[in-house]
Amino acid sequence: MLRIVGELINSTRSRVGSALAARDETFIRRLARDQHEAGADVIDLNAGGSTDRELEGLLWLIEIVEDELGTDACLGIDTSDPDVMEKAIAACSAAPMMNSISNEPSKLPLIEIAADRGCDVIGLAMGEKGMPKTADDRVAETAALLEKCTARGVDPERLYVDQICMSVASDTTQGRAALDAVRRVRDELAVKTLVAVSNVSFGLPGRRLLNRTYLALLVAAGLDGAILDPTDRELMATLCAARALVGVDEYCMGYIGHHRASQAREPST
Amino acid sequence: MLRIVGELINSTRSRVGSALAARDETFIRRLARDQHEAGADVIDLNAGGSTDRELEGLLWLIEIVEDELGTDACLGIDTSDPDVMEKAIAACSAAPMMNSISNEPSKLPLIEIAADRGCDVIGLAMGEKGMPKTADDRVAETAALLEKCTARGVDPERLYVDQICMSVASDTTQGRAALDAVRRVRDELAVKTLVAVSNVSFGLPGRRLLNRTYLALLVAAGLDGAILDPTDRELMATLCAARALVGVDEYCMGYIGHHRASQAREPST
Repeated sequence: MLRIVGELINSTRSRVGSALAARDETFIRRLARDQHEAGADVIDLNAGGSTDRELEGLLWLIEIVEDELGTDACLGIDTSDPDVMEKAIAACSAAPMMNSISNEPSKLPLIEIAADRGCDVIGLAMGEKGMPKTADDRVAETAALLEKCTARGVDPERLYVDQICMSVASDTTQGRAALDAVRRVRDELAVKTLVAVSNVSFGLPGRRLLNRTYLALLVAAGLDGAILDPTDRELMATLCAARALVGVDEYCMGYIGHHRASQAREPST
Repeated sequence: MLRIVGELINSTRSRVGSALAARDETFIRRLARDQHEAGADVIDLNAGGSTDRELEGLLWLIEIVEDELGTDACLGIDTSDPDVMEKAIAACSAAPMMNSISNEPSKLPLIEIAADRGCDVIGLAMGEKGMPKTADDRVAETAALLEKCTARGVDPERLYVDQICMSVASDTTQGRAALDAVRRVRDELAVKTLVAVSNVSFGLPGRRLLNRTYLALLVAAGLDGAILDPTDRELMATLCAARALVGVDEYCMGYIGHHRASQAREPST
């Protein structure tokens, strides 16, 4: 199965930023619960919208979402600040998913923390050269990251390398580059891949259609994890369809079950 | 661009069978016009529903649809009877698409007719052994068909080899097998591929979702032609999305144009 990281609790989204600022517990609990019920395996928590109080915000989110979901869901700690990451992870009751590390030298200490704590880790396929352009760039950065992580004791099964999806609006080669990277990383490196799906459609109209279509292509390429909005029902239906179509859903039972549940909810569709 | 063969004028569909029996010209003209306006490059004509009068039905369909669309669209002559095929093709004003030949010996004379007349040809990737099971089977049958066709003077640019899509309901490996065949035929044989998309979902609920998701996967694999219902708007929107996502739609202009046209028609979606 695809590991689904629910992306909605992110304070750069204006309603979440307001809820975080107001400490609106009800709103955050609802977002966590909805994503969990829609199929998220990991609930990502990002308080980076107000950088001066990021740690404080993140600690509050951890407390609320742990209380809401208990051990039913894994938390994802989403920050670019290594110091905030370390403190937030220490505050989690169970080992969270670390989102994210990369080949940048500033992230190296985090790899050791992930190994010590037994965290699942999202690693970005990028390093000091900045954003990757081609599939080759992504495969090379993934190989380097895999080596760094295994050398520091991270179980390779716990590593999900984000193949850095960028919008096709500004560069039409980027959708194909990340797709090809997913396939090649699976075939050449046997390490898990992950993509933050909605980046592909940034700046274009009809984003949800593009996002769900891209998710299907990624599933066919062998994707292992995705950062997405699990409450988007058409997206989740497309995921089930893609799994049936590429032969990873035995007897299409996952697809059929999902279809029946949708019909029970919305008989008209 | 994907070559789109509109599948709706097929007398095995009950409303079309009735319209053909009643010689309901208005109904057939509307189906031809609707498919043409929705983006079909070829209007497939199949009168095989009543086999005893197939040729007569097909000649009538040809007359009506040629009169309706003139030279705006290519006709597709869809019959499994070589004698009916020869006579129907002789009746067409312009060279139609021949649907279909295969590696079965009974189809060999048709290859020469296609070469003489300069028809585009759909060739099924199957022969005396019956339906292919694996991608290997499909690639081998495609190579054999390509050889037969070129030896008999068919321009390889005119050949679209149907990779025989079967339902994932009865065998979950079949979706992946045809997908892999499309990719391999493009890479190994450089011959055009085509798929009759809706076969993949036969026997399953939510067929339109499966069909459009599969079309996206096929486009990413390098498909050149598809037999489908071009009046299915979500299917055509997914086709445009897939083209933008895999980098074959420069500046995403095809996708953006299609989105704008959809919005103008149905502002709510």
